[in-house]
Amino acid sequence: MRTIELNKRQEQIVQIVKEQGPITGEQIAEQLNLTRATLRPDLAILTMAGFLDARPRVGYFYTGKSSNQLLSDHINKLLVKDHQSIPVVVNENVSVYDAITAMFLEDVGTLFVVNDKSILTGVLSRKDLLRASIGKQDLNQLPVHIIMTRMPNITWCEKEDTLRDVAYRLIERQIDALPVVKKTENGFEVIGRITKTNITKAFVTLSRDDDR
Amino acid sequence: MRTIELNKRQEQIVQIVKEQGPITGEQIAEQLNLTRATLRPDLAILTMAGFLDARPRVGYFYTGKSSNQLLSDHINKLLVKDHQSIPVVVNENVSVYDAITAMFLEDVGTLFVVNDKSILTGVLSRKDLLRASIGKQDLNQLPVHIIMTRMPNITWCEKEDTLRDVAYRLIERQIDALPVVKKTENGFEVIGRITKTNITKAFVTLSRDDDR
Repeated sequence: MRTIELNKRQEQIVQIVKEQGPITGEQIAEQLNLTRATLRPDLAILTMAGFLDARPRVGYFYTGKSSNQLLSDHINKLLVKDHQSIPVVVNENVSVYDAITAMFLEDVGTLFVVNDKSILTGVLSRKDLLRASIGKQDLNQLPVHIIMTRMPNITWCEKEDTLRDVAYRLIERQIDALPVVKKTENGFEVIGRITKTNITKAFVTLSRDDDR
Repeated sequence: MRTIELNKRQEQIVQIVKEQGPITGEQIAEQLNLTRATLRPDLAILTMAGFLDARPRVGYFYTGKSSNQLLSDHINKLLVKDHQSIPVVVNENVSVYDAITAMFLEDVGTLFVVNDKSILTGVLSRKDLLRASIGKQDLNQLPVHIIMTRMPNITWCEKEDTLRDVAYRLIERQIDALPVVKKTENGFEVIGRITKTNITKAFVTLSRDDDR
């Protein structure tokens, strides 16, 4: 990674501070048989890049952060609210056939199911609908609440959550989308949708970032 | 981003080099009314971090890279071969019903379709199968080659492609998965599968990287 490729001397400094910190610049210089002035740029770089931290009258200490961690610090600032999509919801009494139609019309992979008070009660994935569609029941007569995944088994998130947490939950639960919810006294209102597509878009954006 | 938060003086230096580079350290120092020695740590930081480049006897010049670009440099080194999954293939003569069964058994969102010579001829998504399943035809009698997306309309990739390119193609084509192919004289052999799930996993890994 080009951001912080340390040279050999910088690696030595990090090692010394890791083992002996807090330690002053003078003491580091002594151990390396160099002058304090010679070390100044290296110490500045290491501090700026976040490897070391310096406290007046105390010295340098090791932050415990590697270059990859510093990269992850950046990613971990991305929030759901800046990457979410508009949710597509259906009422829990619509038929499976109508839900499939809605899925095609809106071109989404996941539908959120709400009750008459617009409170989240379930989730329907393409997989749920495909499973129902090869069953023996009449899809026009079968209401979605029979086949949906229901509360409290729904994995959800809030708009201030990090994209990293959401990505982790999508992988861990093996699902494609999460509802972004707002807690109300009646239950959860669905205010957004966050999917592997949103994560993939964020990945593309990160890989392309330029002067902004 | 903690990796390279430039201070005001460093920003000024970048600006000067951007407008006037190549320019020597002495000339930069002069414009800022500072000594060359005072500037040395800043120039070292800016060069190490990749903002500036220095050529002996020429001076400093601007690389055109911002901190975000340096982050993207890292992401752009991730390759398909290090992130792909095992592909699930079916023969083009199997029925849609059997394909749906295979999709559930293997728990994948996309099947690749091959001919008797194991050459890629089509792709089946959950959406394709769901569309077929609400049609009027008998799924046991309907072969997948009737409903699949066929070559040459298939978006594919190779193992040396970057994850960034794949992520971009997934978003642009609005698909969930690409076959990773190997070119042979008969056509494409399917050697892997890369999906939004793989991209989401890579995103989680990036966000978690620690001392490795």
